[in-house]
This record gives sequence, C-alpha cells and structure tokens, in this order.
Amino acid sequence: MLSQLDVLQGLTVAAETKIVLLVLDGLGGLPLRPGGKTELESAHTPNLEALAARSLCGLLTPVMPGITPGSGPAHLALFGYDPLRFQVGRGVLAALGIGFKLRRSDLALRLNFATRDAAGLIVDRRAGRISNEKNRRLTALLQEKISIPGVEVFVRTVKEHRAAVIFRGPDLHDGLQDTDPQRTGVAPKPVQATDERCAFSARVLNEFVAQANEILKDQHPANTVLLRGISSYHPLPAMGEVFRLKAAAIAGYPMYRGVARLVGMQVLETENGVEAQLRTLEEHYSRYDFFFIHIKKTDSCGEDGDFAGKVAAIEEVDRCLPRLLALEPDVLAVTGDHSTPALLKSHSWHPVPLLLAGAHCLADGVGAFGERECMRGGLGCFPSVRLMPLLLANALRLQKFGA
Amino acid sequence: MLSQLDVLQGLTVAAETKIVLLVLDGLGGLPLRPGGKTELESAHTPNLEALAARSLCGLLTPVMPGITPGSGPAHLALFGYDPLRFQVGRGVLAALGIGFKLRRSDLALRLNFATRDAAGLIVDRRAGRISNEKNRRLTALLQEKISIPGVEVFVRTVKEHRAAVIFRGPDLHDGLQDTDPQRTGVAPKPVQATDERCAFSARVLNEFVAQANEILKDQHPANTVLLRGISSYHPLPAMGEVFRLKAAAIAGYPMYRGVARLVGMQVLETENGVEAQLRTLEEHYSRYDFFFIHIKKTDSCGEDGDFAGKVAAIEEVDRCLPRLLALEPDVLAVTGDHSTPALLKSHSWHPVPLLLAGAHCLADGVGAFGERECMRGGLGCFPSVRLMPLLLANALRLQKFGA
Repeated sequence: MLSQLDVLQGLTVAAETKIVLLVLDGLGGLPLRPGGKTELESAHTPNLEALAARSLCGLLTPVMPGITPGSGPAHLALFGYDPLRFQVGRGVLAALGIGFKLRRSDLALRLNFATRDAAGLIVDRRAGRISNEKNRRLTALLQEKISIPGVEVFVRTVKEHRAAVIFRGPDLHDGLQDTDPQRTGVAPKPVQATDERCAFSARVLNEFVAQANEILKDQHPANTVLLRGISSYHPLPAMGEVFRLKAAAIAGYPMYRGVARLVGMQVLETENGVEAQLRTLEEHYSRYDFFFIHIKKTDSCGEDGDFAGKVAAIEEVDRCLPRLLALEPDVLAVTGDHSTPALLKSHSWHPVPLLLAGAHCLADGVGAFGERECMRGGLGCFPSVRLMPLLLANALRLQKFGA
Repeated sequence: MLSQLDVLQGLTVAAETKIVLLVLDGLGGLPLRPGGKTELESAHTPNLEALAARSLCGLLTPVMPGITPGSGPAHLALFGYDPLRFQVGRGVLAALGIGFKLRRSDLALRLNFATRDAAGLIVDRRAGRISNEKNRRLTALLQEKISIPGVEVFVRTVKEHRAAVIFRGPDLHDGLQDTDPQRTGVAPKPVQATDERCAFSARVLNEFVAQANEILKDQHPANTVLLRGISSYHPLPAMGEVFRLKAAAIAGYPMYRGVARLVGMQVLETENGVEAQLRTLEEHYSRYDFFFIHIKKTDSCGEDGDFAGKVAAIEEVDRCLPRLLALEPDVLAVTGDHSTPALLKSHSWHPVPLLLAGAHCLADGVGAFGERECMRGGLGCFPSVRLMPLLLANALRLQKFGA
C-alpha cells in the first residue's frame, strides 16, 4: 500500500507558486464557562473574517480524535509527515533546535542541571533555574572533562537549566528511559536498557552521569544532571525531495526551528514577534516557495491559563495579516498545530480551526474564523497530515494520480 | 488488519434489491470567477433538487485530499476497490476497454502510430490522426508480420492513431518506461528495464519496435510506433465474488468499459447519450442487481473549458432522471468519479458532490444538489472507496460485523 509520502513524491512538479503556512501555536481553545466563547471566537479579527468569507474553512485533527499531541508530532503532521509513522524524540528535537548538525544514528538527549542533597536525593529538578551564563560555563566544563572510550560526546547549552547532549559512535541505540524521576525527594533513576540492543548505550549514559556527578560535585545548586528524551536521529525525507519545495521556516523558538530542520527546511534568522517575523518573510519572499511561520504567543498564553493574553495574541496576528496578504501568496493556510485552551492550561485534543485561501478554493460561505464556524466549513474535519497535499494541489504542484 | 474488501466479502448476502450508480464524469466544478456558481450550481435541475430534498448528500474524496485522480483509480474507488492498493496501468485498461480477453500476467500497452523523419526523429506523435480504416489495415499488417520467438503478440485497433498491443508468454513483467518522448524533434526512447526482472520484457518490446519500424517504413505518415502505459494484468477480485452482485456497466467509452470489466462487471452494448443509456438500463433492468451508468459529456465539456456545455450536460441528465426513478431502484447514488472544473480544463482534486437515495436514508434537509449544498450534507466528506459499503448496506445486502 502506498503511503501519502510515496504518492506525493511521485506526483510533485516544480512551479512558481508560493505557499504560506501560518501556524498560531495552540490556536484552538474553549470557553472559560459553558455558553461562552473560545479565545478565537472572542478575538476581534476583522481581517481573518474577511479572508474566511472568501475561502474554505475546516478543522484539523492533529493525530487522531482524542489524542493530545506534543509539538513535534503536531508539526510533523502539518508538514505532511504521518506522526504515527515518523516518531521523533525530544532529544533529537532539542539538538536540532539549537542548530546542532546531527548525523544518522547519533543519540541525543535533553539534560537538566539539577540539585541533589548529600543522600543523593533530588531537591530541585531545575537547579534553581541557573543563569544562561552559568549554564554555558558548566556545559563547557562537562565538554572538557568527560571522556568515554569509543564515543564522541557533545554537550551544548540550551538555556537556564537546560542543555542538550549528543553521543556519536558505533552501536548506539535508543530505547532508554529518562533518568528524571519527575519529582523531588527521590534519587534519579539509573539508565536502564529495555533490550539487549541498547545495553551498550545504557552503559555509556550511566558512565556519563557518573562522570558528570564527579565534575559537578562542587557546583551547587547545579551539582547533578537529569537525562530526558533519549532518542536516536534518523533523518526524515526532506521537503525539498518529496515535495520539490524550497521551504523556509520563520520561527523564533528552538523547538520549532528543530522540527523544521528535521524536514529539511531552511531555518531563517528572525526576531520573535509577528511584526518581526513578517519582516523576515518579506525579506526572503522571493527566495523560497514554502514558508512556515510559527507564532508562539498563542500557546504560551494558553499554557499560562491567560485567556485574555491569548485573545490579544490572536488579535495581533489579525492586525498584521494585511502585510502578509499584500505579498499575495498563491495559497495561504492559517491554523494551529494543536489546541491549547486557557481553561485547561495545557495542550488538548480538540481539533484546530483551519482557513485555506487560494484562487482554486471554492468559498464555503463561512463568515468568520472560529471553532464553531469551522465546524460548518467546507473542508470538514480531517487529519492534519492531509493538509500538505491540499496546499500542494491548490498551488498547482501535483500531477494526476494514475491513468 | 482487515481491508475493506475482506470485511465486505465476509458480510455480503444475496438479495433482490437493485442498486444504480449514476456517474457524471468530472461532475464537480468551480465558478468561473470568485463569488460565482459552479457548473452544477448553475444548472437548472428540478428533478435532482426534488431527489436531494428526500435523500442524503455529501462529498466524495476520490483518492485523498488534494490528489487529482485519473479515471482508472477514480472509478476503482467508486466500485469499492482501494485505488492506493489496486494500481492498474493504462495499457491494461486500453486492452480491456476494447474487449480483449486478458489473461493473468499478459503485458499490455497502448501503441500510437507516429511519423518519423529520415533521421529517425519524431515529427508527429499522432501520425496526422490516421483514419480508423488505415489503423485497421496497419494493425492487421503488424499482426500478420511480427514474430517474436516464445511470445504471442496481439495487435488491436482502438481508433485513429491508437492501438493496443498485448504480449503473452512466460517471464513477462512490467516496470518499463514509455518510449513516447512526449515531444517532437527527438527520437523515441528505447525500452529500458528498471530491474533485472523485466530485462527479457525490454528485449521483447525493443524487438517489436524494430520489426514494426521495418514493416511500416513505407507507410508514411504512420511509419513508426510509440509505446505507452506498459503494464501487466493482474485480475482484481470480481464484484460478483466480493459483493455478491450481478453487476452491469452501461458505458459507451472504451476506458470505462475497460475498468468495469476489470472488476468483473458485464459490459452491456449501448449507444452513447443519456437517453440511449437509460433505454439500455430499462432493457436489462431485470437481469442484474447493480448498474454502473457512465455519462461522459460532463467531463468532456469540463476538459474543453466549456462551462455552458457542462451545465447543459447536467441538465440533460436531470431531464432524463424521471425515467430512471420510474424503475424504482432500491438505492440510487448520483455522483462523479472526480471533478473537472471548466475553469481548470482538467481533472482536479476537488471533492465530488454525492446524492444517496433509498428507503433507509435519513433525509438531511439539503434542498439542492450542488457543491456547497453537499458540503452541508448529512454524509459529510468521505473517501469514494467507502461509498460501496453504503450502497450495499442501504440495499440490505450486508450482515452484521462481529458478534
């Protein structure tokens, strides 16, 4: 049976058309109380409304109904990669996010500096959120002193208490659990192999922890490390190959820059904020034919339970929209990677509003951009992974399937 | 995992009910300008409207969202065969379309008579569209003179410059590219094997071309041949077996007669045109329990960019509808295999309007048959391959699944 990527790879053609995928992270929401409006429904969005009136609306299911996705699978789906087929570890995303050039089979993980007491029990899983500067000094120390025969080790600062570690060498495999116990008052877990294949990797990581504890013993509060998201890097088919797109990402946050790199996008330097990101779009508009623009603030506000802040973040995007429309992209999709209702203060499983605009979209008469309007949209409710074929089709970048 | 065919095959029961699947080829369309109506929305269709008011509407996705299908996969999906699983080559469809009785593993292809100059370069890929009579004379000549040891060769007229060739013998496999260079001023490509398995087939086809060139050398403008759609025949499970249906096709064009034969339908002799095809339906109504009626004109007009012609073709079907309804089929589906908007002058990816009528359809209150009405239909938007189970269910031809 052909997968979607197989089908698309056989059908894509080069074209001059341009596609913009505008992702408001965690866009979907819920009313604070029954009978109320969601964040998107509450926002004053005259530009999105006008656009909705001449385009197609619908709802995206990030992975499957009822499943709350992490940012990785949610974005992979939007980019046309089945999140059930391509599972990417958090460690790999962290390493890619800081621009580390991973090689096939590298083992990557996220490291948290943490505080342990004399008995070896964790008393602070974030080492009092040490400064970026101290983080850099400690990662340099680890990088300098750690030595594991037969394995190259790269220790890199992320920010505050967070770092990324990459192990390179033969016979490294994932299948290892986090050492982070997720609570204080207990000792970190040792790295344990789930099968014979990753026994060597477990020994390497335990050796790493032992050496790190020795090196950091006088660095209170950052006197130990917790390892998370241990994962092997297996490159994904690049968007340039499977979709014949010159794709660029305009994202300020490491995580999203990482997932964009994972699918072979060029990650553009940009400041954060809608205005700054649209300026970046304008500057690079002629050089690429697919742009992924990632707006973080909608999700951050949702996670903080800040309903009004999320409304304001949506309104800011709406105010800036004319600037994007002035570029006249052939196809524009406005959506989210998942829902983050302020009510729940977390990602959720709710389907995500989608607006699709282009010359060949049959306008469905939906007159506003909101969760309940989108329920009645012409696109219906469909999996996020199916969005990319629609974008390519509307950009006239797909040939006919079969005779 | 059970496929849909596996599930259905285990559940079908014989019944006296009759199903009619009326396919208006390329039915779905687009407005000529933003804010306008589609072909179907523009057409005056009082009979379809009345039918829509007492039935279920929806939209069909032929293959997957964004994918523009060829006629083969689009029809296979309507007949309940997953087009991503059953891929059928154009050569096989051409041979079946003219009624050639293919056997398992036959290698079939489409042959175009063409014109080459003294240097061997193609100057006309269609040999000036020679007459059917000349075509018949030349295919007879090739049939008489070509001789390839160990392989039976069948050369058959299609029409104008087109013929079908079938090779029968051990060790023939597809995986060979067209020899048609798709443009003039260059030489035809040799047949090249993509892997060891089809090396013998490549030698056979190159020998065929060499002999044909010699036989046709004085037959200007038809002094060479181009080969296309080289494909092996693997019979599909027949509708009679998997659905327990005595199925008949009422289609005038070879392509659709071919795809109907592929799934084991009886292909009835008929004249073209809605009136004539409904007469054929009436004549054979008592002898079958599933009828596929294929209306070509909607697609032809769409391909020609003839918006008004497509509207008229739809209206002609509407005028004839009472004659079909008078037969009182237990289940009637009116739909298309794909969209062919006159605006695009080609097949497109847009979902196709569907109307499903039967005693057990819960009327959804959709009061007209058009793209945007169907967006709000009770059936929603779903893959074409899922239509057949609905037809069977509404005809009370499926047992319960599981205990």
